[in-house]
Amino acid sequence: MSVPKIKVGVLGATGAVGQRFVQMLQGHPWFEITALCASERNAGKPYGEACRWNLRGDMPAHLRDVILQECAPGIDCQLVFSALPSETAGEIEEAFAAAGYGVCSNARNHRYDPDVPLLIPEVNPEHLALLEVQRRNRGWSGFIVTNPNCSTTHLVSALHPLHLRFGVKKVFVVTMQAISGAGYPGVSSMDILDNIVPYIGGEEEKMEEKEPHKLLGTLEGDRIRPAELTISAHCNRVPVRNGHLEAVSVEFEEAPTMEAILEAWESYRPLAQQLRLPSAPQPAILYNPAQDRPQPRLDRLAGTVPGMATVVGRLRPDPLFHAKFLVLGHNTIRGAAGGSLLNAELIVAQGYLGPEGAALAQSLQVA
Amino acid sequence: MSVPKIKVGVLGATGAVGQRFVQMLQGHPWFEITALCASERNAGKPYGEACRWNLRGDMPAHLRDVILQECAPGIDCQLVFSALPSETAGEIEEAFAAAGYGVCSNARNHRYDPDVPLLIPEVNPEHLALLEVQRRNRGWSGFIVTNPNCSTTHLVSALHPLHLRFGVKKVFVVTMQAISGAGYPGVSSMDILDNIVPYIGGEEEKMEEKEPHKLLGTLEGDRIRPAELTISAHCNRVPVRNGHLEAVSVEFEEAPTMEAILEAWESYRPLAQQLRLPSAPQPAILYNPAQDRPQPRLDRLAGTVPGMATVVGRLRPDPLFHAKFLVLGHNTIRGAAGGSLLNAELIVAQGYLGPEGAALAQSLQVA
Amino acid sequence: MSVPKIKVGVLGATGAVGQRFVQMLQGHPWFEITALCASERNAGKPYGEACRWNLRGDMPAHLRDVILQECAPGIDCQLVFSALPSETAGEIEEAFAAAGYGVCSNARNHRYDPDVPLLIPEVNPEHLALLEVQRRNRGWSGFIVTNPNCSTTHLVSALHPLHLRFGVKKVFVVTMQAISGAGYPGVSSMDILDNIVPYIGGEEEKMEEKEPHKLLGTLEGDRIRPAELTISAHCNRVPVRNGHLEAVSVEFEEAPTMEAILEAWESYRPLAQQLRLPSAPQPAILYNPAQDRPQPRLDRLAGTVPGMATVVGRLRPDPLFHAKFLVLGHNTIRGAAGGSLLNAELIVAQGYLGPEGAALAQSLQVA
Amino acid sequence: MSVPKIKVGVLGATGAVGQRFVQMLQGHPWFEITALCASERNAGKPYGEACRWNLRGDMPAHLRDVILQECAPGIDCQLVFSALPSETAGEIEEAFAAAGYGVCSNARNHRYDPDVPLLIPEVNPEHLALLEVQRRNRGWSGFIVTNPNCSTTHLVSALHPLHLRFGVKKVFVVTMQAISGAGYPGVSSMDILDNIVPYIGGEEEKMEEKEPHKLLGTLEGDRIRPAELTISAHCNRVPVRNGHLEAVSVEFEEAPTMEAILEAWESYRPLAQQLRLPSAPQPAILYNPAQDRPQPRLDRLAGTVPGMATVVGRLRPDPLFHAKFLVLGHNTIRGAAGGSLLNAELIVAQGYLGPEGAALAQSLQVA
Repeated sequence: MSVPKIKVGVLGATGAVGQRFVQMLQGHPWFEITALCASERNAGKPYGEACRWNLRGDMPAHLRDVILQECAPGIDCQLVFSALPSETAGEIEEAFAAAGYGVCSNARNHRYDPDVPLLIPEVNPEHLALLEVQRRNRGWSGFIVTNPNCSTTHLVSALHPLHLRFGVKKVFVVTMQAISGAGYPGVSSMDILDNIVPYIGGEEEKMEEKEPHKLLGTLEGDRIRPAELTISAHCNRVPVRNGHLEAVSVEFEEAPTMEAILEAWESYRPLAQQLRLPSAPQPAILYNPAQDRPQPRLDRLAGTVPGMATVVGRLRPDPLFHAKFLVLGHNTIRGAAGGSLLNAELIVAQGYLGPEGAALAQSLQVA
Repeated sequence: MSVPKIKVGVLGATGAVGQRFVQMLQGHPWFEITALCASERNAGKPYGEACRWNLRGDMPAHLRDVILQECAPGIDCQLVFSALPSETAGEIEEAFAAAGYGVCSNARNHRYDPDVPLLIPEVNPEHLALLEVQRRNRGWSGFIVTNPNCSTTHLVSALHPLHLRFGVKKVFVVTMQAISGAGYPGVSSMDILDNIVPYIGGEEEKMEEKEPHKLLGTLEGDRIRPAELTISAHCNRVPVRNGHLEAVSVEFEEAPTMEAILEAWESYRPLAQQLRLPSAPQPAILYNPAQDRPQPRLDRLAGTVPGMATVVGRLRPDPLFHAKFLVLGHNTIRGAAGGSLLNAELIVAQGYLGPEGAALAQSLQVA
Repeated sequence: MSVPKIKVGVLGATGAVGQRFVQMLQGHPWFEITALCASERNAGKPYGEACRWNLRGDMPAHLRDVILQECAPGIDCQLVFSALPSETAGEIEEAFAAAGYGVCSNARNHRYDPDVPLLIPEVNPEHLALLEVQRRNRGWSGFIVTNPNCSTTHLVSALHPLHLRFGVKKVFVVTMQAISGAGYPGVSSMDILDNIVPYIGGEEEKMEEKEPHKLLGTLEGDRIRPAELTISAHCNRVPVRNGHLEAVSVEFEEAPTMEAILEAWESYRPLAQQLRLPSAPQPAILYNPAQDRPQPRLDRLAGTVPGMATVVGRLRPDPLFHAKFLVLGHNTIRGAAGGSLLNAELIVAQGYLGPEGAALAQSLQVA
Repeated sequence: MSVPKIKVGVLGATGAVGQRFVQMLQGHPWFEITALCASERNAGKPYGEACRWNLRGDMPAHLRDVILQECAPGIDCQLVFSALPSETAGEIEEAFAAAGYGVCSNARNHRYDPDVPLLIPEVNPEHLALLEVQRRNRGWSGFIVTNPNCSTTHLVSALHPLHLRFGVKKVFVVTMQAISGAGYPGVSSMDILDNIVPYIGGEEEKMEEKEPHKLLGTLEGDRIRPAELTISAHCNRVPVRNGHLEAVSVEFEEAPTMEAILEAWESYRPLAQQLRLPSAPQPAILYNPAQDRPQPRLDRLAGTVPGMATVVGRLRPDPLFHAKFLVLGHNTIRGAAGGSLLNAELIVAQGYLGPEGAALAQSLQVA
């Protein structure tokens, strides 16, 4: 007997992140796309005409003729994935949440609201409890859940098991970020061919001040108490298509051995993996032992769910702090659309989309 | 009245660094190439036939028919520039020094010998006094002077004026190094197109343990007392042709303001610049105030002597240390051949090539 | 009931093409790797140690510990795939054929032997009849079958259905070939970053004089009568990882309309597709109607078997000849290892590996 | 005694081509910039603030504080260089010509007007006689002269000496064009990294139908009789910063030997070179005899005036036509701003800017 899937919509379906949502939702065991929404300019046009598909492989054929709708409540679905630009995401997402939709957003607008979870399922699933607070505060029947910035996601994913065991105190991180992180058309080829641009607006602030502290923070009553760690970030754009590589040095509360760090990564099996969420890679963190890995081209799709794992490598003692290593992750999959999708899976599995959703999830997981 | 130039030879003239020596010596006011030397395999062939010229512009026409000689004493010159690979540089350079030649070497073999200057003219010109020790120790009538590794050169150049004023204690540095640093054929295009290779053999050790400490060290009697600073380096190869970019965070003995750091760079006028050595850029350090600079493509040739200056930018407070900033420099010009060339100029100007050399230098400088 | 697979070996398993063979043979329904062979230098080592895996994803885990054998008869298999360099391929392949092995070779050594099929299953399957001639001539119990050069393969694949209908007389072709075509390390990054190298040794000769004429030729008795067409080729290396793009202008015996050309491509269903060989893409030729396609990055993996289809686009009248269009194909999949693999599948299906092979193929195809 | 220079303005000074005009006019012996004009949006701002300088080296320091003016007659100069986009160039250039200014335009708007010279000084200097017709037709006291499209310029430059001797009948050309040809931001890095875009809007039409025929045409009375040749062009965008490379096959009226073609190029000394115009490279055409040249990175700046020469190479017989070869030229120097600048120099030298201009030119040339 086939169980009906959960109906989902994509807001901002024609852009780079929107296309990833569409691609990743193809054949998803729990979700089915029933609405594609775009800007006023494109609403009313068939998706195949309004969207210049930029991912490998063609646009899913059955979506070509789907007529784009406006980004406003009324569309036929329970959950929306938001790939909206920050210029418009704020109000539109609120309108959807107020109208009873679940919103899984990749936009930065609500990430830092105290009652909105900034979620990585492996890292802080308990922060979903904020949804009660959010509903109470705002009187919404729906909700908003956000995922962090692409460069933060993989850094925090790699740090989380170490933080649990040894307490992360200080982090020095230099990112080498792929061009796809800037969307389409994004970075001009004139700026990046044979070049590096050592500046990405707002990126260092997000990493130093905003996101890791909330993600690694502790739920205390109605609030998240931010984690106490200090981060120094240098962010760079490099001529690589996909995959953010980060050079990281860390000081802990107590000095671990390199073996202990390795063991912390290798034994890491957080809730998302225990629940066997469909988009959760097994394992969540891969350690590549080669002396010159991870590399973006070779490792950005590593693991059981391509683009969803965090890959670490080159663990070694640091002359100034305790340890240094590399972190690599796919920026438009786990770092954007895939992050939101996994959030949605956790939300469903935890019953936040109603008991039917949870039951469905369970029935499908067992199957 | 025309003064005769100093005769120089190039060892390893067919390789990538050797070609840079040849290119930079074209039209040099003090030096003239009178010998080009290569491996046994190529000795006896015309330079134009044995050397696959890989730099922009063609090989200097008058050198095409010069017959390559073997890398052994007996060639007609006073000074040799060594672009030899480390497999052979060690013994050959010693043989030349023993035979009375001055050797300005880009090879790493003798860099860490206690009686061999590891020299950046702006940073540690007083270390040339080691040449007395070297002659005494080894009984040579000639000498060997070395220049540091390309990634160290620009880092230490940027740190030097800050070290003089505020005392550098701790340095975090992540390099993004150009492909030309690996020579020719060097890095396979299969490894670096759409990719980063986060490992360069031996590079981190050079930066963390060996070169900066000697360069910033103090001459005490017959020895250099290494500077006491701690460095953590992550070295990466990126798809950029020329120009190493480095993200740097620094802790000082005493906390300076950002203005004081800027002022230290801007007022920096070391000996090489005071002497107006022909290859010394004026100024030695350029601060680019744009928020997204320096960039390799736009800035690697900045300054009065293309490829010889160190460019800094994005100075800002660091959450963990006192300051962070970017350093950029050309790796095959100042970081290799140009570094050796400027060393030779200082050597001549300081009289280490005999009083005639110094007199010549002076007469030419005045002219 | 599980049917035992055909045992195959890979000669030259550690190189770029050898790795592709290994990758494509993973999970193959008819073939299973039972021997990996390499140069003397590497024989005796585990594959995982001798081979620097350069493809996305890791080396198949169960092959890591397989001990490399020398490239000489005696290995346990019926069929070998040869990824040997042309320096050694000639004699080794002959030794295997003499010893009774079937050899599917990607090397150029025997391509132009009159009694060796140069095979594209879609184009000239009837040329396999040369195997009788080959056995008779050479007294071999095994055989050698070759596949064409990567740039020829896709050109001829695109021309074949047009040649059948309209007769190809003259072809202008300019190739823009990917770096992977030169193997590993192959093209130096110093030569190709921000550059084009408008010369590939021997490539234009292969396209102008040797391969297309044999491929499109007619089997007459014991020989192939070469097709009578004239080709002018300009071959270029471009900074693209995979996928050769070719700009083509064609004059036919009789002028077709653009619609007739399109129809010829779209209705093309040659033997390999009719037989439903496992690696035969369905369809063999894809026409992309967008005005700016095919593009290497977006289309090199298009179709039902990634990397095996030929993609055409931008069909339009030519001011000098009858038509012009673009051809794109993956050079290391269909243009090398995949071409050999599909050849092997045709060989098996046609009974050239003995009736058991053909029966097996049939039983597996039905399943 | 210093002769006063001719005052010139740059229309569209902030864009990519406008910046090249500014760069190339630095230190020009005949011209001096007295006005920089930009769009309404930028008029009134200092150049250094409105213009994001994108060329190597910094913006000329003395122009930083120049206030941008609107693109309308009234500015203080005799001659304007137009780097305007085609959306606005048409009317603005006419207004300037009507008001008495000489206009040297890189825009395509007036290129095909029968009374507007489409000029390459080496190729068709006699077409300047159209200026009389233009003045008569339009009642202008000034004039408009245009330069061709970047890909046409170098093709026609290479063909011209061959056309003079052997008569060009048929040309097959495939271009591999640099990203800078599309301006800034122009080509998205997402479209071109590890890729080729085999389509450039309008480019093939310009080469096949419009520009070469006019350039190689004959002035007959008041009109240009177009040259009778047939061209087939395939235009591609490749990941190269600067330098268009073109693979060319040519059929002539009478078959020349390869030696005769070489000789035609080598003995080519057209009017612009005879007049020793300041931006005319000596020689105009360079033949590089290496088997793998010209290459964009190595040869785009070859010759006595960097970026102004046309480089040819790989001349060899063509199986279909008489000869094939490669053509390379810098697209934003000779192919855009430099082409206009050389046009202006010819105009001045020929007296079209009044006898004072010609006298000035002569006095400066002699000096």
